[in-house]
Amino acid sequence: MKIGKSTVPESAICASDDETIVVRGADLCNELIGKISFADYFWLLVTGQRPSASASRVLDATLVAIAEHGLVPSVQASRMTLAAAPDAIQGAVAAGILGCGSVILGASETAGRLFLRVAALADEQSLSLEAAATEVVRELRERKQAIPGYGHPLHKARDPRVARLFAVAAEAGTPGRFVAVAEAIEKVLPALTGRDLRLNVSAAIPAVLLDVGFPAQALKGVPILARCAGLIGHLTEELATPIGFALSYQATREQRYTGTLPPGLTLKPKE
Amino acid sequence: MKIGKSTVPESAICASDDETIVVRGADLCNELIGKISFADYFWLLVTGQRPSASASRVLDATLVAIAEHGLVPSVQASRMTLAAAPDAIQGAVAAGILGCGSVILGASETAGRLFLRVAALADEQSLSLEAAATEVVRELRERKQAIPGYGHPLHKARDPRVARLFAVAAEAGTPGRFVAVAEAIEKVLPALTGRDLRLNVSAAIPAVLLDVGFPAQALKGVPILARCAGLIGHLTEELATPIGFALSYQATREQRYTGTLPPGLTLKPKE
Amino acid sequence: MKIGKSTVPESAICASDDETIVVRGADLCNELIGKISFADYFWLLVTGQRPSASASRVLDATLVAIAEHGLVPSVQASRMTLAAAPDAIQGAVAAGILGCGSVILGASETAGRLFLRVAALADEQSLSLEAAATEVVRELRERKQAIPGYGHPLHKARDPRVARLFAVAAEAGTPGRFVAVAEAIEKVLPALTGRDLRLNVSAAIPAVLLDVGFPAQALKGVPILARCAGLIGHLTEELATPIGFALSYQATREQRYTGTLPPGLTLKPKE
Amino acid sequence: MKIGKSTVPESAICASDDETIVVRGADLCNELIGKISFADYFWLLVTGQRPSASASRVLDATLVAIAEHGLVPSVQASRMTLAAAPDAIQGAVAAGILGCGSVILGASETAGRLFLRVAALADEQSLSLEAAATEVVRELRERKQAIPGYGHPLHKARDPRVARLFAVAAEAGTPGRFVAVAEAIEKVLPALTGRDLRLNVSAAIPAVLLDVGFPAQALKGVPILARCAGLIGHLTEELATPIGFALSYQATREQRYTGTLPPGLTLKPKE
Repeated sequence: MKIGKSTVPESAICASDDETIVVRGADLCNELIGKISFADYFWLLVTGQRPSASASRVLDATLVAIAEHGLVPSVQASRMTLAAAPDAIQGAVAAGILGCGSVILGASETAGRLFLRVAALADEQSLSLEAAATEVVRELRERKQAIPGYGHPLHKARDPRVARLFAVAAEAGTPGRFVAVAEAIEKVLPALTGRDLRLNVSAAIPAVLLDVGFPAQALKGVPILARCAGLIGHLTEELATPIGFALSYQATREQRYTGTLPPGLTLKPKE
Repeated sequence: MKIGKSTVPESAICASDDETIVVRGADLCNELIGKISFADYFWLLVTGQRPSASASRVLDATLVAIAEHGLVPSVQASRMTLAAAPDAIQGAVAAGILGCGSVILGASETAGRLFLRVAALADEQSLSLEAAATEVVRELRERKQAIPGYGHPLHKARDPRVARLFAVAAEAGTPGRFVAVAEAIEKVLPALTGRDLRLNVSAAIPAVLLDVGFPAQALKGVPILARCAGLIGHLTEELATPIGFALSYQATREQRYTGTLPPGLTLKPKE
Repeated sequence: MKIGKSTVPESAICASDDETIVVRGADLCNELIGKISFADYFWLLVTGQRPSASASRVLDATLVAIAEHGLVPSVQASRMTLAAAPDAIQGAVAAGILGCGSVILGASETAGRLFLRVAALADEQSLSLEAAATEVVRELRERKQAIPGYGHPLHKARDPRVARLFAVAAEAGTPGRFVAVAEAIEKVLPALTGRDLRLNVSAAIPAVLLDVGFPAQALKGVPILARCAGLIGHLTEELATPIGFALSYQATREQRYTGTLPPGLTLKPKE
Repeated sequence: MKIGKSTVPESAICASDDETIVVRGADLCNELIGKISFADYFWLLVTGQRPSASASRVLDATLVAIAEHGLVPSVQASRMTLAAAPDAIQGAVAAGILGCGSVILGASETAGRLFLRVAALADEQSLSLEAAATEVVRELRERKQAIPGYGHPLHKARDPRVARLFAVAAEAGTPGRFVAVAEAIEKVLPALTGRDLRLNVSAAIPAVLLDVGFPAQALKGVPILARCAGLIGHLTEELATPIGFALSYQATREQRYTGTLPPGLTLKPKE
């Protein structure tokens, strides 16, 4: 069935014959394997260009920052999945990645779009970043939309990864424009929302990545790739010392059934 | 419901409070972000140890080698999934990772186990690697099991990535024990199978990784993480220049329906 | 980590002890197994109530209507995934379900929301359905949003499943309110869009289901459950007569590489 | 890339043109929608044949038996995934289905294969079912393989669904051959294993399904389809009254970190 108009698939990423594999214009074996780091290769795959030294340093830092934060929901889902299906580690990784959604890790992308909008408004109307931030945040609040990238359930003061990522970006000599946008929003938020919401890692990541030219539409790929590494760490541990079923047991120890029972029936309490 | 005996979840990977995140014994912000490459961090997450310089070099090389090879089945599945569900890039990545199974990328793990068995047999019985390889391959053939990691649908002569990975490993000063095992198997295969099956990348990867001490039970994680990067490259391209539906259109142009039709009914030919 | 306020999980769906399983207030063994059809049980699971006779008939019809339509993209993705990972059928089913997104099967839900909006507007402002439809469609067009549930890549005239579903619903004695809404939109579309877009199955399904009281927020579950059945049919065939790799081969026969090659390198043409 | 020999995809499931959709030899609109139940259609999709009245009744019973059992690990994984990615219900369903693996619901398939083997051995060697069961179980024990389908973490006495499924099958007039096999294994298990392992639902399902001619290679599809319905029930509840994050919070309340801390660092205790 023909859906849409395009019928001949085109791609600019890879071509090969029996002897050679070309990726993004380079000979994979002669020019890339052993000569480029995995993070730089990721940049090349996504953008078609090699990263600058600053970009390389910042990308590595963001991937390291977001790869691991303990037994978060997606890691729990992944470990439970491996416990139930230990032969299919790819399924457990997939289950964990499916938890990189709009609420949890997807904020990297939506915060990035927010920063681009604030920066564009400031440019177009020659506003200060704070004035532009105020306008955009006010608009989001009016439409009852969330402000992505601010506030954290554990790190009530500023998420410690934020300062570190900003420091790495500064050391790497990035222009700092989007870091300034992110901080402008942080500054105006308390007055507009009545809550002292501080920058979290999902806002710091797009701020520093946009500053080195990472494409906005690929921002969500950064936490996904990073978490993939974290998940493989957890699943390797799960194979050796399984806790998937222990997690699910704990999760329901205090569970309450709020439905009805058939007339006359009582259930024994959980042990 | 209590499944199994363990009821208190334990993990050695990460601990945190509101100010500090500790990963594998190190302070994430002070000791890792901006100071360790993403591939080295992956090694740390999986093993609990920092990689040696050789290990670091070899791991980066394997991740780069396997991340991308064009519109392979799992990439097609992923791009079709994004075309159908463009709002959920995590779903398209997950669909692509689900194709890292026993037939395609999982050979990295099964080939690794094969190498360990050949090496152990050679040690235990003081056999040459070729003699041990002969014995193990013969056994697999008798049980009609496949020899993972040899032969490739496109690269009929040796997969070009193999020589390159072996060269990187040699430059990095690895002991080369498992590379020798992999080559011993390659040498005995034609006589035992009647086919000139050559080492492919899924055998080269475990050979060089086992030589730098990467844990066998995590081998499948390497192609999964690598392909995650490749998938994000393809999905970023898919968002800009979609081909997911073009691929599915092409795939079925010559499709034949081998079932029956209701009496008297004919269907119009496909346009 | 505590995310959100709720900390004690509650559910009204199921409770059990070692001897009895209660689902939605009924004893699973004594009252449900062997006494209720699977589709009626699905209704009970989702709504907490048993379906009326009309609802039962309509739900079955919608599930049958949408379960199978040949080698559509999600089926291709699923069969390619099984070819690569034949041991993990759950992974191939999951890959197929991940293609039930906003563009393909998710229209059942978005079309349902559209119908509710048109019906509510007609009620609130005492408008005819066509007048209300005109207003809502005009608004969607102004915001450049798609009209979900109209037009089909193959069935250019009305999708044949539409008339059949409407006939079943009429036979079952449903009120037909939302069918009338769906048809009102179909009537006003040509004038507003300049295109003769006809009702497709993804609009017929929510129309007849809303008419029997199926909850709007669960509408997307109907095509997902239905396609799950279709996928299992295809995967059973794939295990017996595999075509996953043939599909991926066909898909790329005419593929064009639009990137560059390293200076001096040429690749052999595909055979 | 050409993988394998088959290059032209063939399928016997569905064909269509712009006016007609044929599924398994029948006109979908005229012969199936509104005329066949969803469970019977599933049988038709998988086998290419319509089910007998017995088969229809038994299949419905098995789907109802296994669809729902509360907040089991795969349901928890699914609800956590929806909490993190509420826009992508297909992703949450997929995550739940990925937990239908060898340890949890996959036993339906492996138990089915076990029953076929016992029945074949009894036929070939004219043994009683108990004698054949003894031989096969002894062999599994020698190879340290699990006996799939016996024992349950909650239902220590026989899982109540077992007797009910066997009663439905008897009422439906099935031959009962594989039920007898399943019970023969149950009888010999205590002497061979030293444990009073009783039939669970994952053994009862293949027993009654094989007795009505359901294909062994599709057995795993039954719990997958059934759980898909259960998951949609849970996800509909999750949208209305979310507990995904409450489950993950509970799961880690007693979690212990077994790794090290950087010298001199202490973390605050969890609140």
